[in-house]
Amino acid sequence: MTHDLTEFAHSIFDAQPFSRFLGAELTAVGPDSAEIRIKNRPELQQQHGYLHGGVVSYLADNALTFAGGLALGGDALTAEYKINYARPAVGEVIIARATAAVTTRRQAVCQVSIHAVKDDGEQLVAMAQGTIIAVERRTPEPPAAG
Amino acid sequence: MTHDLTEFAHSIFDAQPFSRFLGAELTAVGPDSAEIRIKNRPELQQQHGYLHGGVVSYLADNALTFAGGLALGGDALTAEYKINYARPAVGEVIIARATAAVTTRRQAVCQVSIHAVKDDGEQLVAMAQGTIIAVERRTPEPPAAG
Amino acid sequence: MTHDLTEFAHSIFDAQPFSRFLGAELTAVGPDSAEIRIKNRPELQQQHGYLHGGVVSYLADNALTFAGGLALGGDALTAEYKINYARPAVGEVIIARATAAVTTRRQAVCQVSIHAVKDDGEQLVAMAQGTIIAVERRTPEPPAAG
Amino acid sequence: MTHDLTEFAHSIFDAQPFSRFLGAELTAVGPDSAEIRIKNRPELQQQHGYLHGGVVSYLADNALTFAGGLALGGDALTAEYKINYARPAVGEVIIARATAAVTTRRQAVCQVSIHAVKDDGEQLVAMAQGTIIAVERRTPEPPAAG
Repeated sequence: MTHDLTEFAHSIFDAQPFSRFLGAELTAVGPDSAEIRIKNRPELQQQHGYLHGGVVSYLADNALTFAGGLALGGDALTAEYKINYARPAVGEVIIARATAAVTTRRQAVCQVSIHAVKDDGEQLVAMAQGTIIAVERRTPEPPAAG
Repeated sequence: MTHDLTEFAHSIFDAQPFSRFLGAELTAVGPDSAEIRIKNRPELQQQHGYLHGGVVSYLADNALTFAGGLALGGDALTAEYKINYARPAVGEVIIARATAAVTTRRQAVCQVSIHAVKDDGEQLVAMAQGTIIAVERRTPEPPAAG
Repeated sequence: MTHDLTEFAHSIFDAQPFSRFLGAELTAVGPDSAEIRIKNRPELQQQHGYLHGGVVSYLADNALTFAGGLALGGDALTAEYKINYARPAVGEVIIARATAAVTTRRQAVCQVSIHAVKDDGEQLVAMAQGTIIAVERRTPEPPAAG
Repeated sequence: MTHDLTEFAHSIFDAQPFSRFLGAELTAVGPDSAEIRIKNRPELQQQHGYLHGGVVSYLADNALTFAGGLALGGDALTAEYKINYARPAVGEVIIARATAAVTTRRQAVCQVSIHAVKDDGEQLVAMAQGTIIAVERRTPEPPAAG
């Protein structure tokens, strides 16, 4: 993976107001993978003190987008995904690790697992699978350099 | 639907720190339906100025949970769901309307549509379908009367 | 909907060996909808005498494809879908009714409900939602007029 | 895994008329995994000569059920799943390999990958994820021996 693509991923992530609002971090990127972490805190929880499903979904959705975008080599978006919550998300930190399983010309089918970090190690709390599609540029532009 | 169940739904919603953090409101409940609204604002957006998929997912997930919980008659949680983002979510307000399509003893299969409110009306921006399961009480309790 | 598109849908369906093998019928088509029926018989069942999930999935998948193809105006395929089995599929006939909920240029997000016909009426047994994409022609062709 | 559970899985599979009708085989089972194979033949195809999505779905659904049932230790059924068709399924044999990723008391969240066997090796053609639930016995029965 080129240095440019790594920088591109981080620049897109940093340009997401919602990711900053939640306090999420893009902690690793690879040629077809991405990892996003979030520190648990009270305002991210639901009525039982677990991380709200909406936050787990954010992690799944966004990690899928970045894994797919990296595999596709540019800007991308999540067209759809499906998530199973397997266990309550309780822990200091929640980590989403996504990879592109199949990449074709315009889309990548990606999977992500969500882990809660606890005193005694990581626990798998949710799994998702979805379709990431390359964003088409709407206006003509010169060929990219490099 | 009993007045009690309506109150129960609102009390659960009000007890969700994440819903307050996002500024979401539970704007309607029925015997097997729920509506949640959120006012668009910059910190809920992604890098293109659309509502972030994580917020759309929160709306879908939570509206599904409440529709299913109301259909099941008590506390419930989303076991899994699948969402299709059909169009960018742009608008002043985003509304999720969920209904339980099939309710059996311990679960409800629910659907939700997400609409963006624009100057010229509402636009369907996303659709989701999922399984809501009744939360079992963990502690022994006396047999229910009646 | 043009007569041509109705004929096109039936010709595609009739060209599916697997649909004939199962004994399925395309019983209705509309501008963005399709209905497929199958007569229950022992070889379509699983170990408890219910229609096998694979048959229910076939009905969902194929009805989604036809609803989406009709909405998109030509040959199409199911890119992905999600199905919830809500109740055992028992009955003389099983019917899948699909509609396109949102159609954009190259894809349609469609929903389908699967009903079992019993002595006392129809029962909803499964629900699915998925993405249908227009099939691109692989060979060059002259520019379309108009 | 006990010998009994292996035998139980095969006896359930052999009792599925639809699996025999399609010519599918349960070719491997493990403590939380299952593999099902099917030989491609014309009546399993769609209009372009690819294996019909309904057959791919059957493979996904059934492999998920068996992986989940083995993980749960008894009779089970697929409550829901989601499938992405990544590439056309073309090849002599199609293989579904499923594993249970998270098993709790009454359910297993399972994943399956579908591969087409071609002259130059296997190709991943589809991926699915779903929920398998333990079938509750409706009538009292004596504890199982062994």
